[in-house]
Amino acid sequence: MTGDHTDKIKAAIFGGSGYGGSELLRILMCHPNVEITLVTANEHAGKLIGDVHKNLFGLTNLAFERSPEDLSSLGDLDVAFFALPHGQALSILPQLPPTVKAIDLSGDFRINDKSVFAQFYKIEHTADELQADFVYGLTELNRHAISTAKYIANPGCFATATLLALAPLVKRGALCGKIIVDAKTGSSGSGAKAAANTHHPQRMTSFYAYKPFTHQHLPEIKQCLATVGDIPSDLVFMTHSLPVARGIFASCYLELAEPLSSDDLTAVYRRFYEGSRFVRLVEGSPDINWVKTTNFCDIAVHTSGRNVAVFAAIDNLVKGAAGQAVQNMNLMFGFEETTALMFAGTNP
Amino acid sequence: MTGDHTDKIKAAIFGGSGYGGSELLRILMCHPNVEITLVTANEHAGKLIGDVHKNLFGLTNLAFERSPEDLSSLGDLDVAFFALPHGQALSILPQLPPTVKAIDLSGDFRINDKSVFAQFYKIEHTADELQADFVYGLTELNRHAISTAKYIANPGCFATATLLALAPLVKRGALCGKIIVDAKTGSSGSGAKAAANTHHPQRMTSFYAYKPFTHQHLPEIKQCLATVGDIPSDLVFMTHSLPVARGIFASCYLELAEPLSSDDLTAVYRRFYEGSRFVRLVEGSPDINWVKTTNFCDIAVHTSGRNVAVFAAIDNLVKGAAGQAVQNMNLMFGFEETTALMFAGTNP
Amino acid sequence: MTGDHTDKIKAAIFGGSGYGGSELLRILMCHPNVEITLVTANEHAGKLIGDVHKNLFGLTNLAFERSPEDLSSLGDLDVAFFALPHGQALSILPQLPPTVKAIDLSGDFRINDKSVFAQFYKIEHTADELQADFVYGLTELNRHAISTAKYIANPGCFATATLLALAPLVKRGALCGKIIVDAKTGSSGSGAKAAANTHHPQRMTSFYAYKPFTHQHLPEIKQCLATVGDIPSDLVFMTHSLPVARGIFASCYLELAEPLSSDDLTAVYRRFYEGSRFVRLVEGSPDINWVKTTNFCDIAVHTSGRNVAVFAAIDNLVKGAAGQAVQNMNLMFGFEETTALMFAGTNP
Amino acid sequence: MTGDHTDKIKAAIFGGSGYGGSELLRILMCHPNVEITLVTANEHAGKLIGDVHKNLFGLTNLAFERSPEDLSSLGDLDVAFFALPHGQALSILPQLPPTVKAIDLSGDFRINDKSVFAQFYKIEHTADELQADFVYGLTELNRHAISTAKYIANPGCFATATLLALAPLVKRGALCGKIIVDAKTGSSGSGAKAAANTHHPQRMTSFYAYKPFTHQHLPEIKQCLATVGDIPSDLVFMTHSLPVARGIFASCYLELAEPLSSDDLTAVYRRFYEGSRFVRLVEGSPDINWVKTTNFCDIAVHTSGRNVAVFAAIDNLVKGAAGQAVQNMNLMFGFEETTALMFAGTNP
Repeated sequence: MTGDHTDKIKAAIFGGSGYGGSELLRILMCHPNVEITLVTANEHAGKLIGDVHKNLFGLTNLAFERSPEDLSSLGDLDVAFFALPHGQALSILPQLPPTVKAIDLSGDFRINDKSVFAQFYKIEHTADELQADFVYGLTELNRHAISTAKYIANPGCFATATLLALAPLVKRGALCGKIIVDAKTGSSGSGAKAAANTHHPQRMTSFYAYKPFTHQHLPEIKQCLATVGDIPSDLVFMTHSLPVARGIFASCYLELAEPLSSDDLTAVYRRFYEGSRFVRLVEGSPDINWVKTTNFCDIAVHTSGRNVAVFAAIDNLVKGAAGQAVQNMNLMFGFEETTALMFAGTNP
Repeated sequence: MTGDHTDKIKAAIFGGSGYGGSELLRILMCHPNVEITLVTANEHAGKLIGDVHKNLFGLTNLAFERSPEDLSSLGDLDVAFFALPHGQALSILPQLPPTVKAIDLSGDFRINDKSVFAQFYKIEHTADELQADFVYGLTELNRHAISTAKYIANPGCFATATLLALAPLVKRGALCGKIIVDAKTGSSGSGAKAAANTHHPQRMTSFYAYKPFTHQHLPEIKQCLATVGDIPSDLVFMTHSLPVARGIFASCYLELAEPLSSDDLTAVYRRFYEGSRFVRLVEGSPDINWVKTTNFCDIAVHTSGRNVAVFAAIDNLVKGAAGQAVQNMNLMFGFEETTALMFAGTNP
Repeated sequence: MTGDHTDKIKAAIFGGSGYGGSELLRILMCHPNVEITLVTANEHAGKLIGDVHKNLFGLTNLAFERSPEDLSSLGDLDVAFFALPHGQALSILPQLPPTVKAIDLSGDFRINDKSVFAQFYKIEHTADELQADFVYGLTELNRHAISTAKYIANPGCFATATLLALAPLVKRGALCGKIIVDAKTGSSGSGAKAAANTHHPQRMTSFYAYKPFTHQHLPEIKQCLATVGDIPSDLVFMTHSLPVARGIFASCYLELAEPLSSDDLTAVYRRFYEGSRFVRLVEGSPDINWVKTTNFCDIAVHTSGRNVAVFAAIDNLVKGAAGQAVQNMNLMFGFEETTALMFAGTNP
Repeated sequence: MTGDHTDKIKAAIFGGSGYGGSELLRILMCHPNVEITLVTANEHAGKLIGDVHKNLFGLTNLAFERSPEDLSSLGDLDVAFFALPHGQALSILPQLPPTVKAIDLSGDFRINDKSVFAQFYKIEHTADELQADFVYGLTELNRHAISTAKYIANPGCFATATLLALAPLVKRGALCGKIIVDAKTGSSGSGAKAAANTHHPQRMTSFYAYKPFTHQHLPEIKQCLATVGDIPSDLVFMTHSLPVARGIFASCYLELAEPLSSDDLTAVYRRFYEGSRFVRLVEGSPDINWVKTTNFCDIAVHTSGRNVAVFAAIDNLVKGAAGQAVQNMNLMFGFEETTALMFAGTNP
């Protein structure tokens, strides 16, 4: 937070009061190459950020502002992050001056097929003329395209864990049969606003499935996998709610065309993620406890005959949202990919 | 739930959709002498109770009803429980036919002094002509009056734990100096509706104080203690929020006029609560874990010179609400005090 | 706990200090037809039960005893429950007098094939001459055999949830393709003794997989399913750890030979479980929150084309252990199957 | 972790496998002026640190070593941290070469009076000839002495929160009457080893008091306060266990000789902590949620007549242990006090 500001890019956060915004702020405040110049939150306009995100109390003098009526005045901005509810970036982002890059953490620009978007999000897409400018920001799979992108559609949290778990085997064409993904999320995935499903007295002792067969991350998983390789058969994707604040855990059940040992399979993953600093291959099982508050994705692979289980764990708000957004920003602006992201988790 | 219904009293629950109503239903459904004939919940009218309180799914065919416009039709009712937000029994209860007894779980009729009520509840009392008909339902202190009462003001959860902890020493006149009560509650104390302070991602790692020096249970504690004995000096009462669903824990700091050993003091409590089946004197410390879902109040007493610490733990929804209400109902109708209330907690 | 004791059966609990024993005590203490005459726990011999299971403090005068050296003196016993660690009933149960029925909550007598037992439990079976006397106690599938059994092998918690989820479709022969079961358990499944994987500071924010492809409940699931119908292909069974105290949640992924609607499939389940008081078919998803501390198994079924998801939730210590054991005992002695088991869960 | 190592001090951690060691590693690994040259943990000797503290997996190549038999070889060390169980630094620290500074996180050198130490720790002090070389490391109260100290006795977690809450009023001589401190700790305060009181199935729904009137932090609180000002009467200190992993919350009940408004009192605190970057005065109440994983101590003050409540919240492992230890090291070596410690907490 010191140093010569002239060498810093200027960043705005649209939607700074949610958990995605909160984590963007935590990370970007420590980024040596970024100056945050605008943080919007209409309902908190005028309040200090530290009075809303009390973890940041005393650490910044930034205040929330209303979203500007006229975005054309934001010409000196380098990058805009959108951490708004689904459907809002759709109407705001097209108003950005053409020189401003953007990273959208919502689902608004993840789906290339407008009708699929409408089906899963129950929103009509009103800015599909911009869709071609968007790169899907699953960093480890798309580094080159991301580095030259104007706009990034930052992946969903479930999609991130699932895709990092599946990509090496899909790429290799090693699979036959159906892919089953049993995914679980912590309660912060439901956002910062209180709701019945995150009411503490019930949630603390709950585990349940939701949106069976219809979760909106399914189409982005399929669309991205199709760019990696062929899915031999069907992909079943199921989401559940965990009684923790943070974390995604994806258990993926696959079938190999030819049997491989667990060690050989782990080697496949190790090669695939060579140079990917945020993917860690672990023994036994990943645990959301060890990735919470970090940008890491921990993965373990096990086989039994031709059956394979791949387990992946991330923090939904970091690698599954704000952290990956900053990772993408780093690539877009030529910074070291890991800048401001190598913070460790805690034990406990 | 079988047997000759003619020997059962008829009970209504006004406000059946909250946690107090939920626990009244759980308990009364197993009460051999009670038939539930009406459960109101305007926003759920028409729904099966088991579709809202899913713990009761398949266990009852009762459905929620709208609160009747005209309560004079409820003349065959024996008892009405009110488990409504503060301020609502005030206007409904006076309409009951004169033959119907009532037990109010809210704070509406706990405070004899109308101006004190207005100060702490921010509501003007509109039915104070009924106040004289109410007995304060702290069962262990008031059995005789309760057994002949028409109306019961069921104590607050904090007040129940605090009063059971303090009464034996206040009664004995053994105290000098100030009384400090540091009280903690689980999240269900905030009710069944989602709210910011019970949002799971934050509450699960929270502990904080609230309403310093101004909690509305303070006046009922002082009022009830004054009927037990003299408080030599000031009483400080402070409330905090715990990241558990259920439980009240009160830590009371007292000063003896003359020193007593921990054992002698425990003996004082043992004598005071002789015959009180729901007060258990324990070694070391009570733990909300061992009283959760039960009607027990566990108490431990420690001394160091003239300093005394009394610890009391209850379940806020049972001994602190619905359980004590049924305990009072048992006395009012001549049933064994423990009827339907001797269920054990669980380990774990 | 009152009444004429002469019409009660006499029951012993071997291994009363664990969570299985704790729940057997909680349930049997309220059973109108059972008198508990012996509770063993060598390390707590002489202590009151309520001093160990503090939820029962003040509710019973029973004390723990050492396991008798000579079991031939237990001839007036009617039934013995074994709630010991795996491998101990093996050596104790054969010493029971021949008139005593037994229900073993461990895995010792669940597996008919001695070599499979050795493979999964890493214990040599030393009492396989008794194996033929054992009936597998998944009540809803085996009522007739259970009612005439001498010995019951009470199912594992994971196996109970999984089998109740799968049996209707396996029975119907409706499946093709692989069966994938992604199962999750609460921390009480690891027992009452503190261990690294149940250390609170880490467990409260953990979720992880364990024993991939090798969990010891797999063989009993396969063995029991084989008695119900044909499994068309492979069965993959994977276990995970949840940060709650109680609960099993099984997500089962199946493939239908012919597509069925979710409603039609639910009807299949409804017919299969007609008359089974403890299986509840629910909308959306079951939630461990709504079955905790109860003997219920909540199930929901969803389809998408030929893909099926079946979700089942139970309390691992009740329907997954002590509750089902009592359910089986009720059948063995001609009591109503639901006796002492219809207690409701709580909200919250 | 890059840069010229020649300008870094060399640090050792004795006892690196516990939670104190874990947090020292997390913080020191990011410290620009520190090189960690030795981390001991006899039971893990030879293992990579990231294989034990899995949050650090992939972030360091350091491995645990056995504690050296002969400490005289450690002459090139600049500072040694001791994060061992109570009673172990006593025998190891005296063997350090005389040029090595030391910071002990245990209670071994906090108490000046040997007999008081023996009474509260049940250990005979065998190194009291070194006691005079120790400075009590409550940074905000003792900066000058710390900056020139050879050895630091790092305060206990409860003592840190309590002293920061009480010091401004004790210093001012504003109090009369008794001081009551009702303190609560998270489960990580019990250490990294599994134990009955941190067994997840019970702890997650527990709250209880422990060590009434006898907690070992009481004497260090009294001893330190005596250096700040006069305590007019008695100090009662009571400890409780919270079902969270991290956090200390101290509720302090005081009496003013002359009444002051809450605002005036807050101003007293604001002045006292001017320039103390890690003490934040907050409105309403502090919440352990907002200080978790940070070095901050959040404080709020409320008055009612002459009654005062001061609430203080810290993370027991950071400001209550490893963070404050590094804060002290920064002063001892002339680094900016906040170096490596300004990391934010997270929301949620």
